[in-house]
Amino acid sequence: MTDRQLYNTKNLLEHPEFRILKEKPAKGTGRNIALTYDVDHVNKFVEKPRFDPAPGQVEVNVRATGICGSDVHFSQHGHIGDMVVRCICGAGHESSGEVTRVGQGVTEWKAGDRVAIEAGIPCGNCEFCKLGRYNACQNDIFFSTPPHFGTMSRYHLHPAAWLHRLPDSVSFEEGALCEPLTVAMAGIYRSGLRLGDGVVICGAGPIGLVTLLAAKAAGSIPIITDLSQSRLDFAKKLVPSVKTVLIERGQTPKDIAQKIKEEAGMPLTLALECTGVESSVHAAIFSMTFGGKVFIIGVGKDIQSIPFMHLSANEIDIQFQYRYANQYPRAIRCVAEGMIDLKPLVTHRFDLEDAMDAFDTAADPKSGAIKVQVLD
Amino acid sequence: MTDRQLYNTKNLLEHPEFRILKEKPAKGTGRNIALTYDVDHVNKFVEKPRFDPAPGQVEVNVRATGICGSDVHFSQHGHIGDMVVRCICGAGHESSGEVTRVGQGVTEWKAGDRVAIEAGIPCGNCEFCKLGRYNACQNDIFFSTPPHFGTMSRYHLHPAAWLHRLPDSVSFEEGALCEPLTVAMAGIYRSGLRLGDGVVICGAGPIGLVTLLAAKAAGSIPIITDLSQSRLDFAKKLVPSVKTVLIERGQTPKDIAQKIKEEAGMPLTLALECTGVESSVHAAIFSMTFGGKVFIIGVGKDIQSIPFMHLSANEIDIQFQYRYANQYPRAIRCVAEGMIDLKPLVTHRFDLEDAMDAFDTAADPKSGAIKVQVLD
Amino acid sequence: MTDRQLYNTKNLLEHPEFRILKEKPAKGTGRNIALTYDVDHVNKFVEKPRFDPAPGQVEVNVRATGICGSDVHFSQHGHIGDMVVRCICGAGHESSGEVTRVGQGVTEWKAGDRVAIEAGIPCGNCEFCKLGRYNACQNDIFFSTPPHFGTMSRYHLHPAAWLHRLPDSVSFEEGALCEPLTVAMAGIYRSGLRLGDGVVICGAGPIGLVTLLAAKAAGSIPIITDLSQSRLDFAKKLVPSVKTVLIERGQTPKDIAQKIKEEAGMPLTLALECTGVESSVHAAIFSMTFGGKVFIIGVGKDIQSIPFMHLSANEIDIQFQYRYANQYPRAIRCVAEGMIDLKPLVTHRFDLEDAMDAFDTAADPKSGAIKVQVLD
Amino acid sequence: MTDRQLYNTKNLLEHPEFRILKEKPAKGTGRNIALTYDVDHVNKFVEKPRFDPAPGQVEVNVRATGICGSDVHFSQHGHIGDMVVRCICGAGHESSGEVTRVGQGVTEWKAGDRVAIEAGIPCGNCEFCKLGRYNACQNDIFFSTPPHFGTMSRYHLHPAAWLHRLPDSVSFEEGALCEPLTVAMAGIYRSGLRLGDGVVICGAGPIGLVTLLAAKAAGSIPIITDLSQSRLDFAKKLVPSVKTVLIERGQTPKDIAQKIKEEAGMPLTLALECTGVESSVHAAIFSMTFGGKVFIIGVGKDIQSIPFMHLSANEIDIQFQYRYANQYPRAIRCVAEGMIDLKPLVTHRFDLEDAMDAFDTAADPKSGAIKVQVLD
Repeated sequence: MTDRQLYNTKNLLEHPEFRILKEKPAKGTGRNIALTYDVDHVNKFVEKPRFDPAPGQVEVNVRATGICGSDVHFSQHGHIGDMVVRCICGAGHESSGEVTRVGQGVTEWKAGDRVAIEAGIPCGNCEFCKLGRYNACQNDIFFSTPPHFGTMSRYHLHPAAWLHRLPDSVSFEEGALCEPLTVAMAGIYRSGLRLGDGVVICGAGPIGLVTLLAAKAAGSIPIITDLSQSRLDFAKKLVPSVKTVLIERGQTPKDIAQKIKEEAGMPLTLALECTGVESSVHAAIFSMTFGGKVFIIGVGKDIQSIPFMHLSANEIDIQFQYRYANQYPRAIRCVAEGMIDLKPLVTHRFDLEDAMDAFDTAADPKSGAIKVQVLD
Repeated sequence: MTDRQLYNTKNLLEHPEFRILKEKPAKGTGRNIALTYDVDHVNKFVEKPRFDPAPGQVEVNVRATGICGSDVHFSQHGHIGDMVVRCICGAGHESSGEVTRVGQGVTEWKAGDRVAIEAGIPCGNCEFCKLGRYNACQNDIFFSTPPHFGTMSRYHLHPAAWLHRLPDSVSFEEGALCEPLTVAMAGIYRSGLRLGDGVVICGAGPIGLVTLLAAKAAGSIPIITDLSQSRLDFAKKLVPSVKTVLIERGQTPKDIAQKIKEEAGMPLTLALECTGVESSVHAAIFSMTFGGKVFIIGVGKDIQSIPFMHLSANEIDIQFQYRYANQYPRAIRCVAEGMIDLKPLVTHRFDLEDAMDAFDTAADPKSGAIKVQVLD
Repeated sequence: MTDRQLYNTKNLLEHPEFRILKEKPAKGTGRNIALTYDVDHVNKFVEKPRFDPAPGQVEVNVRATGICGSDVHFSQHGHIGDMVVRCICGAGHESSGEVTRVGQGVTEWKAGDRVAIEAGIPCGNCEFCKLGRYNACQNDIFFSTPPHFGTMSRYHLHPAAWLHRLPDSVSFEEGALCEPLTVAMAGIYRSGLRLGDGVVICGAGPIGLVTLLAAKAAGSIPIITDLSQSRLDFAKKLVPSVKTVLIERGQTPKDIAQKIKEEAGMPLTLALECTGVESSVHAAIFSMTFGGKVFIIGVGKDIQSIPFMHLSANEIDIQFQYRYANQYPRAIRCVAEGMIDLKPLVTHRFDLEDAMDAFDTAADPKSGAIKVQVLD
Repeated sequence: MTDRQLYNTKNLLEHPEFRILKEKPAKGTGRNIALTYDVDHVNKFVEKPRFDPAPGQVEVNVRATGICGSDVHFSQHGHIGDMVVRCICGAGHESSGEVTRVGQGVTEWKAGDRVAIEAGIPCGNCEFCKLGRYNACQNDIFFSTPPHFGTMSRYHLHPAAWLHRLPDSVSFEEGALCEPLTVAMAGIYRSGLRLGDGVVICGAGPIGLVTLLAAKAAGSIPIITDLSQSRLDFAKKLVPSVKTVLIERGQTPKDIAQKIKEEAGMPLTLALECTGVESSVHAAIFSMTFGGKVFIIGVGKDIQSIPFMHLSANEIDIQFQYRYANQYPRAIRCVAEGMIDLKPLVTHRFDLEDAMDAFDTAADPKSGAIKVQVLD
């Protein structure tokens, strides 16, 4: 209980050693700084006390953290759905690092171990945790989601059971990218994608691209769509065999679906929808064969329409993904084996002390950034 | 090929012995009359030639035929979606009967055998037929769907492979009711309903009620909703342990879902949606636990909205059913074993010569009819 | 950690208040006595200290405990496979009771609550626990399995998260029987049994009979086999519609399978094998249709033969069950709803102080006992 | 019916134009010769009449046919299990070719089309055909299985619905190899192999090697075993990332399993067993993690032992594959997309007129042959 409370921002705020920095921190000091977002929609650096790890805890020197769309969204809009920023909160949940110290009873880790950090810590006792669907846990701590701190910090305390070993062949950058990869892997796993399936991936943003990589690695024959030709070109560089469909504004979903089907030249049985945009979901639905499935990874408008009778007459299922469960070891194995090459996705790198610039880059559509990482 | 052509209404219309009757047919003549609907939205009796069964075909004296909502809809509105009435077509696809004659090469049937008629005959050669999802066959003949004749006829020719033996313990009325039961069974089967699941069934019409019977037989703990208290009372008579929720106009889907969840008193992991009405689908969605599934059997408006982000944050899947495949033997077994008692569902019975009255009763919401059958 | 250590018999043995009783305990004293088995193959009563519940723990006054075949086996043979009795251990893991006291932080239970006790407590942190397959946990505590104490004790301390609420309609006897029921439920769930399946259950002992009850509740059409006509008669009383096949010594598995198939009169797609006996497994295999599954719940000889090529040519799968996971709430619901009536299974009842007599009865094949329970 | 009869050897034998050749046929004649095996265990060339294709049939000039272990086995031993050679029968079921003529009603094929031949033709009307498990059809015609002719013939008549289009990028040799590939694909599909799974493939013969290719393409991390280092070397050339374990005679299955697990360095959740040898099956079982699956593709002794209690205590499932269903289009797609490179598997090529030499090579363990093909 006590250690769970420490993960809560509010408890940290009251600590005498905690302070909000007024200036950009100097480099090379080794101090335990972290980037936050706040109720006033301004990113702020803070300095946190460096606690001793509690029993079962591990202290990690965070070496790489990717900026997720949700980090930017919380920072700019102050909420995602019901999750509202009500006090200063920490950014970052796509992290890897090096173990620095371990708490009592921790035998599986030692200083120097290289790890990916699984940023959601479920309670372990509820119905969903027992079922293995711990992403449904209502009592979880998910770092960087209010009211919790994030992992974009020099030092981060984490339960030993929720770290994952990185082989030497997997860099810290790749280890941090395993987080978005687990989202894609969860989709691949739960959607039932199989060898030789024709699959359309909607959207070539960061999640669409890791999904493409995972879908290709899983033996599907992918086709990808996007509104941006440069993103499709990027996709093509990642996976040369992928077919691409440029979506043009003004096309109807049925038109787009027709184009997708023609380009694919084979029955499409699965869509991995990574945009969450209504028209894209419709296009995905219309491109499916009878019995197909539209698996929705992207998030979007609260209420959206669907072509109900087309779905009914064609037994097309709609399935949704919320975060992930049990995917980290599998994701790391795929990267370590060279089956999924995440490295090209990191387009911009910043020092921890320059994390505000990193945020600006990630938030700027003109930057051309796929994945911005903060390194230490 | 040739025998498939015979199933097409158009080919029949040109036959010299085929004629449209101007008067209600007399009873006791044994003539091969059939009820039809036409482009002018008027039901008509016809007399058909009584062909010899072709090789592989069986002639059945149809003994019971239920009137389906789709029969009434085609008759009154002239189309369902893309399926349009362009010439006189036959009513009826929920039928059972007695074998009278068999064609060459038919060894598994003989005169006097009691059978249920599976009214959709797939091509057997396409990708979907090979996969066992023959309800997706684009070259199938589905009796009573334009341009095909129906089974509400004194004599009906059918391929031997698509008849199903009725044990003596199953009456012709029950045999005919196996058709809507297969729809429910397909839903039960494909939805993955399991012993001890809490299940909400939306709608207590004919499909909702057979779905209730099947869901109860499958070991779920059902709760059923409807706008009509008398239908809920009927449901309660069929399945005394079922819980009921009366939907009141003006309630929001979230309100209804709250009521359903309170009444159920256990996690609901599956909804079997039998209304196809948008607000009911929403209520079903909001009543699900994380990881639940809304399985849609009902048909409704072409385009409907869904609470997209609620589905996403709770990994609630939406699945659809189109007709059925491979369910008849299973359905008949359940009836024969006494696990599903269909008999109370037949509320009105008519002779074949009174089939127009049967249609009127089925079409009249004030009749209180659940299932109207035409018997011979 | 500390509380987990308390569950270990060895730690308890060193406690100053722990003692082995030399005489049968007197009734009506309320003392914390428990029945054990020991390395000398003699059951012994002990008196345990009555500890205060640790944080997160609940003290339960155990009201009913069934004697399992494994209790008798450990007592008589000193081991089951690799699990060896190396010091005095406690009997009992099929228990229900009434909450008497709760430890710090326990908010979901209060004195007087009626509960079933899930006797296996997994670690919560390993790969299998995270996956929801906690029956695979290598660090679990399973009461009554060496070196742990059992639940056949007046007072038992248990983690709050591993108790399950019993509705008023479920008696303590039924609550205790939920343990063997969960084994059957796990088999039903994992085997994929579906409404209308023809299912053969091999063996009409306690596990076979609860499996029969669960298989019937799940909508299958069961047939049951046994070497004893009286057990088949008992099965018939439990489930009047069940078909029975008496196995006669000297019959070959193919003969038995032929008899099963004839008696069933429908394709059998699933066998729930509850004997673990080689010839019975073979008979189950030969009775399956192409694509069937033999699901093995029973335990038996370490090495057994299978008709390999028959399995291969008929795509018959073999699946195994080890204990259970996530089945208690489902099992209790089925009992509470009246779908599964466990009450007739309790054939013999004893006071806690007469537990040795209970063991003798359970161990005596001539007693005709199905389930012997110890009540308090 | 009539056209099905023509596929039966016996009907062909009585034809006046059918004759058994006494000498090796001359090359370049274009005559409709075929290789057979006979009751006297001697391969013989025959000349068959060149029938006109019946309605729905297609005549194919067979361009490539692989020799399967079953061809050699029938030829040398006269039976496989219950399938006995009772008259002269044809060899070959791994074939591709070019369409030469089409029968009445065939619209999807024309002369010059390149096709793979699916050699098993199910009845289309039985329970299993309707279910999509047409490999279970009891009324199927499987070419090269007694009493049917084979496809190792210059011209072969085949139902239009059971040919599969080969894209220009897929050679005839690869098209013929799609047959063994479908066996592997069926195993991959039905076993539930998923991206990132650790998988052990037992046996590096032709089926083991195509299984390796397919398992790699499906995103698993494979390790392969064999008794022959040269076969393991071949496997390593096909899939450079594969790990290999050389089985040494005298090792126990537990020793082998230990070696496999150490070499793999990750949990193994699936074995694809391609040898059918008892000790290999045991090694596969012992190498699995809790909840793993041993999927058996190989055939072997009628009765074999299994470590029953180890399977039980670890919930390890055993699943079997019999031929394949619905895999050809998927297999061809994978080859056409370059995901599976079958070309290196063809180690020996012969003209049709030299087919007896091809048989000798395939039957000679010293030839080092992986796949021997007969080309035209």
